[in-house]
Amino acid sequence: MTQLHPETTSPPERSASLGHRPGRIDADALAGDLAAVESRLARHLGDRIRAATAFGPAYRRLWESARDAADGGKRIRPRLLLMAYRGLGGDDTEAAVTAAVAYELLHTAFLLHDDVIDDDTVRRGRPNVAGAFAADAVARGASPARSRRWGEAGAILAGDLLLHAATSVLARIETDEWTRERLLDVLDHSVFVTAAGELADVALAERLGPDAPTLEDVLAMTEHKTAAYSVSGPLMSGALLAGGGEDLLTPLAEFGRLVGIAFQLGDDLLGVFGSEDVTGKSIVSDLRQGKETSLIAYARGTARWEEVAPSLGRGDLAVPDAGRLAAVLEECGARRFVERLLVRHVDRAIAVLDTPSVPPGLAEPLSDVARSCIGRIQ
Amino acid sequence: MTQLHPETTSPPERSASLGHRPGRIDADALAGDLAAVESRLARHLGDRIRAATAFGPAYRRLWESARDAADGGKRIRPRLLLMAYRGLGGDDTEAAVTAAVAYELLHTAFLLHDDVIDDDTVRRGRPNVAGAFAADAVARGASPARSRRWGEAGAILAGDLLLHAATSVLARIETDEWTRERLLDVLDHSVFVTAAGELADVALAERLGPDAPTLEDVLAMTEHKTAAYSVSGPLMSGALLAGGGEDLLTPLAEFGRLVGIAFQLGDDLLGVFGSEDVTGKSIVSDLRQGKETSLIAYARGTARWEEVAPSLGRGDLAVPDAGRLAAVLEECGARRFVERLLVRHVDRAIAVLDTPSVPPGLAEPLSDVARSCIGRIQ
Repeated sequence: MTQLHPETTSPPERSASLGHRPGRIDADALAGDLAAVESRLARHLGDRIRAATAFGPAYRRLWESARDAADGGKRIRPRLLLMAYRGLGGDDTEAAVTAAVAYELLHTAFLLHDDVIDDDTVRRGRPNVAGAFAADAVARGASPARSRRWGEAGAILAGDLLLHAATSVLARIETDEWTRERLLDVLDHSVFVTAAGELADVALAERLGPDAPTLEDVLAMTEHKTAAYSVSGPLMSGALLAGGGEDLLTPLAEFGRLVGIAFQLGDDLLGVFGSEDVTGKSIVSDLRQGKETSLIAYARGTARWEEVAPSLGRGDLAVPDAGRLAAVLEECGARRFVERLLVRHVDRAIAVLDTPSVPPGLAEPLSDVARSCIGRIQ
Repeated sequence: MTQLHPETTSPPERSASLGHRPGRIDADALAGDLAAVESRLARHLGDRIRAATAFGPAYRRLWESARDAADGGKRIRPRLLLMAYRGLGGDDTEAAVTAAVAYELLHTAFLLHDDVIDDDTVRRGRPNVAGAFAADAVARGASPARSRRWGEAGAILAGDLLLHAATSVLARIETDEWTRERLLDVLDHSVFVTAAGELADVALAERLGPDAPTLEDVLAMTEHKTAAYSVSGPLMSGALLAGGGEDLLTPLAEFGRLVGIAFQLGDDLLGVFGSEDVTGKSIVSDLRQGKETSLIAYARGTARWEEVAPSLGRGDLAVPDAGRLAAVLEECGARRFVERLLVRHVDRAIAVLDTPSVPPGLAEPLSDVARSCIGRIQ
């Protein structure tokens, strides 16, 4: 399961057949693929909304909320999947678009359940499914407790529906038996690892994990919660559909792991040192939540920790105090350490692509993706 | 989606090829199939527990709890699926056993999320995933609120993992393309309808559905929440794997709908008039919860409703008061009405099987299943 079924080795003709050494990905073609993902997603969810109408207004509302939840994302997973597919010379995008839709549905399902677990009712600046359902109940005169339960039920069910849809959509891709099995292996692995990461994240937040989480604990959580299904899974799926075998999947999985971590390290830095204008996120929120980030894990091992610990996780932390805390995180070396760690992960990710199985047409755009993790913190 | 893709009509050779008119299902063969389901389930979950170990003790514990949740059920869905398969003369049970495992995983996933939605921490007389995780947190000194969140996170993730597993396991069945697509259609439909029923159930419980729920509302909720994935889905899947086409699927879907409702009507009756020794369930719990059952929906339309309404849903309802309430439900005609309704559903279910496409080898054991809905309330 976690080994991606090592017994199913590549048929000999795979990867080797990718000898046409495709050039740079055509930006227009990729944009067209992403537009196809949008319309496929809209059609899938629109069909469900129509079918739900027969089951009453609440169920229709549930599917409309699920559609809204799927709307407005950055489509990182479809983009990576299609980059891998195009970068390996794939040009019959029907199956790759379907796989991209599946990963976007999976992502939305995870966000919905993550919000239930974190008790959040807002996502991307508007009410999420739980928020919308709770507001409906309040409008109908229900008590806060009943409204909350209605919101939670809606969000759990919407997440279940999209989680199931992701797997079913992927399983229906028209391709050969071997490729479909491997696509399911990669999806199984993505779901399995993400759930482990989500559980570790909750354990850290609820102080039910290790007593003093190390940087290693935090990086492992990040890798599992995000990198597997957001980067490695989509890249491997695109490669599989383009005809890639183990010699391609192994470096792409490792690249995804490293870039996923680098991206999260960037989030950690931006969460404390970023400009609110750019990130759209308050620089006090991570500190108020007492989020277990790479910065905090590093600071814990320094002499300045006693200045950090008392303020961390205080919901009433004032902005000037957050500023002082940020200064301590800078002075104790945490900022510089995490910046260097990020650059090291990006360098290693790019180095992983330097292997004959990864053609320049894929290595170059993926290297750009990796470098963008540095660009966003500069 | 809800129409089971009417555009995919049966290939002409289906069902007609079932002309060998199989005899009664061999009880030993069926018992062997069910034993195979147990060992396949145990192997699937055992593999995941081992793989989870690499992600730390909490994740291993999550999979162990998921295994415990899948343990001890009555295996109604696997039994029905394999009855349909065997009753139609199927004798290569590998694929049917796999499909049965998928439906049992789906059932367990639904139970786990149903418990989260209902805030229940006990199932089948022992702590469920949420209960076990919350107890772990309490033992580690966490506050009640943190322990509750840990329990809820565990149960949501365990349900997600089993829900995904159900679809992935079904999608990997080795069969022809047409049959696999139809199996996925039936599973999609089961999940879609069950979520609608679950949402309707929550709406009734939280008084967010219709102001005065009718018998029709209650029966529709039951049909959607239970009949689709528990009876119709498994029977249709077994029939598909045995080579059945539309002429078989249509009556089996309708039979499942009627039997699913009959079973729930029996539950409603046993919940108020049953013997606690037999049902293992207190006869006050439905009344204390104010559960919207067929009995209550009927009573609402009678002159005795004002005697029922004030006590219904009172958490402190004493046993003698529950007894008086049961007497009113009997005197107002609710009991007799629901008993007759149950018998009518059973009769109609058996009548549905009286069609040339359903061979006696299947019609007879399924009629016995339908009749058992009457037997359990006598």
